[in-house]
Amino acid sequence: MPRADVTGGSVHPMLATRLDLDRIRAARKVIDPVFVDTPAYVCEPLGRRLGCEVTIKLETANPVRSFKGRGSEVVMGGIASGTGSGAVCASAGNLGQALAYSGRRRRIPVTVVAAKSANAGKLDRIRELGAELVLVEGDIENARAEASAIAEGRGIRLVEDSLDLETCEGAATIGLELVESSRDLDVVLVALGGGAMATGVGHVFKALAPGVEVVCVQPHGAPAMTRSWHRRRIVTTDTINTIADGVAGRHPIPEVLTDLLAVADDAVLVHERSIRAGMRLLRDLAGLIVEPSAALGVAALLEDPARFVGRRIATIICGSNVDLDDFARWASAGAASAWAE
Amino acid sequence: MPRADVTGGSVHPMLATRLDLDRIRAARKVIDPVFVDTPAYVCEPLGRRLGCEVTIKLETANPVRSFKGRGSEVVMGGIASGTGSGAVCASAGNLGQALAYSGRRRRIPVTVVAAKSANAGKLDRIRELGAELVLVEGDIENARAEASAIAEGRGIRLVEDSLDLETCEGAATIGLELVESSRDLDVVLVALGGGAMATGVGHVFKALAPGVEVVCVQPHGAPAMTRSWHRRRIVTTDTINTIADGVAGRHPIPEVLTDLLAVADDAVLVHERSIRAGMRLLRDLAGLIVEPSAALGVAALLEDPARFVGRRIATIICGSNVDLDDFARWASAGAASAWAE
Repeated sequence: MPRADVTGGSVHPMLATRLDLDRIRAARKVIDPVFVDTPAYVCEPLGRRLGCEVTIKLETANPVRSFKGRGSEVVMGGIASGTGSGAVCASAGNLGQALAYSGRRRRIPVTVVAAKSANAGKLDRIRELGAELVLVEGDIENARAEASAIAEGRGIRLVEDSLDLETCEGAATIGLELVESSRDLDVVLVALGGGAMATGVGHVFKALAPGVEVVCVQPHGAPAMTRSWHRRRIVTTDTINTIADGVAGRHPIPEVLTDLLAVADDAVLVHERSIRAGMRLLRDLAGLIVEPSAALGVAALLEDPARFVGRRIATIICGSNVDLDDFARWASAGAASAWAE
Repeated sequence: MPRADVTGGSVHPMLATRLDLDRIRAARKVIDPVFVDTPAYVCEPLGRRLGCEVTIKLETANPVRSFKGRGSEVVMGGIASGTGSGAVCASAGNLGQALAYSGRRRRIPVTVVAAKSANAGKLDRIRELGAELVLVEGDIENARAEASAIAEGRGIRLVEDSLDLETCEGAATIGLELVESSRDLDVVLVALGGGAMATGVGHVFKALAPGVEVVCVQPHGAPAMTRSWHRRRIVTTDTINTIADGVAGRHPIPEVLTDLLAVADDAVLVHERSIRAGMRLLRDLAGLIVEPSAALGVAALLEDPARFVGRRIATIICGSNVDLDDFARWASAGAASAWAE
């Protein structure tokens, strides 16, 4: 465990993760208020269509249009109060935007490494926010390697999403807000990529509301962490084949898997057609334009309605950075027709 | 003045309206938390396009997808604590949804009168929320007359948007949130229909941040209140010709005009093509699906860029209840091409 400096346990005696409620509560206080206390509301039209009560936790109405600002604020708050001279991260686009935003407000230089194939809109925003953008061939795993090399070469902070506790603690504040709201829940659906959001939100629920089922959702086209969770050991994959760029990785991080095993009740895989149908339903019934990763929860509801019928579900709408032409194509009635009836 | 029971003045000695800061602060406490503390954030891509700093105040991430829940909560909170047995209102759809929502949570029967030509989605949601829906020929002014007749016939509360102080006080809580945020503003743009939002938000700014310019925006196709404001007397119109159904009235209310004269710095009219271009920009640069009334502020920025260049602007995104086919047609590049360069 590379983060041996983390002290303090959870209030739940059986909940052994790297996370800690006191640190999560402290994290919330350093986050720019623009990223916290996000809307949470029952969307009845969506619930009626899906046969359950659906609470939307909306993480897109902020300057970077994703939940990643929570974690980047914790990371950069720590750097600002320390001696760091800069930071570098690999990103599919959302963490990069968030880190660029949080760095800019603190005058800390940020470098973002992304795949050349990454979402162009996300890359444009990273540049507009003043970060240095380094593009590499391949996918996010190649970007992670390059970011690591840059950090070593320049002697700057490498921010590793999901491995670095601040990224999990930032995301975990979503869980605090959901638990502290008066609304009772049966299930929380969390998009699963590297695992920062799933372990963070999961930790808070298992610590404070253990009766709520924590269900992680990942695409069949990027299933490494879900397979790892089911087999209780790291499983890697060779390729990525999903429109959900925000959750697309191939090499799960061992420390994160250990945490995920402690807090997740289940991890499920969904098909691309369900992600597209989820995007369409969120547009048609909730009036929301979302990126594919944000539709994973609705996709899970579509794929297994019997499991969720009549239950009180929260789904975290984690990002809205999507090319509009892509969105229109993915959310078209044709793509969703299998689920449209 | 039919509301002689309203006591207490503003802290601003020259600010003579029917509204009162203490009542507005009290109103905030009775509103379902799902409607308050809405996101407010600078949207840099939009600001870059428009040449100014644009703060979005997002009033659509709630169960009725408009700001009207703030006012309906104040109205129905008063009825619940009184002796009323029901309420009726005329509505283009958003107030009706909000009143139905607020009535349902308190088991108070609600009747909504709307024009047969009103937005079908809004009418469906009113029914789904359990309200009685009465449809009339003509437009919102015919609906107002019928609602008044129903109230008299049944002996139930007639809720008159903008005339009834609770509707203004509810909307005014948006102003409190904007003023109390740390962000400095030069201008707040407010959609102008009956005037509840404009007088409510305007009162708060003139009382607490009088240096902020309060600019009301109305379509040329429904200009009655704006013309009345400029002539300082009631001007009615015979027809309505705008896609912005939420702000489309013909008969301004004298008491509301008096208040508006006290708090608005300006009232401007915008063209339909600018409203459509505003919807398109909010979709393309902010990722938001909005109804036409919510794009009035951006339309004003498009029509008079020299006036707003370099300034810090807040625009209230007041609703997102729009038929998606209408939205796609209105926000199409063709419709917006005049402003797209």
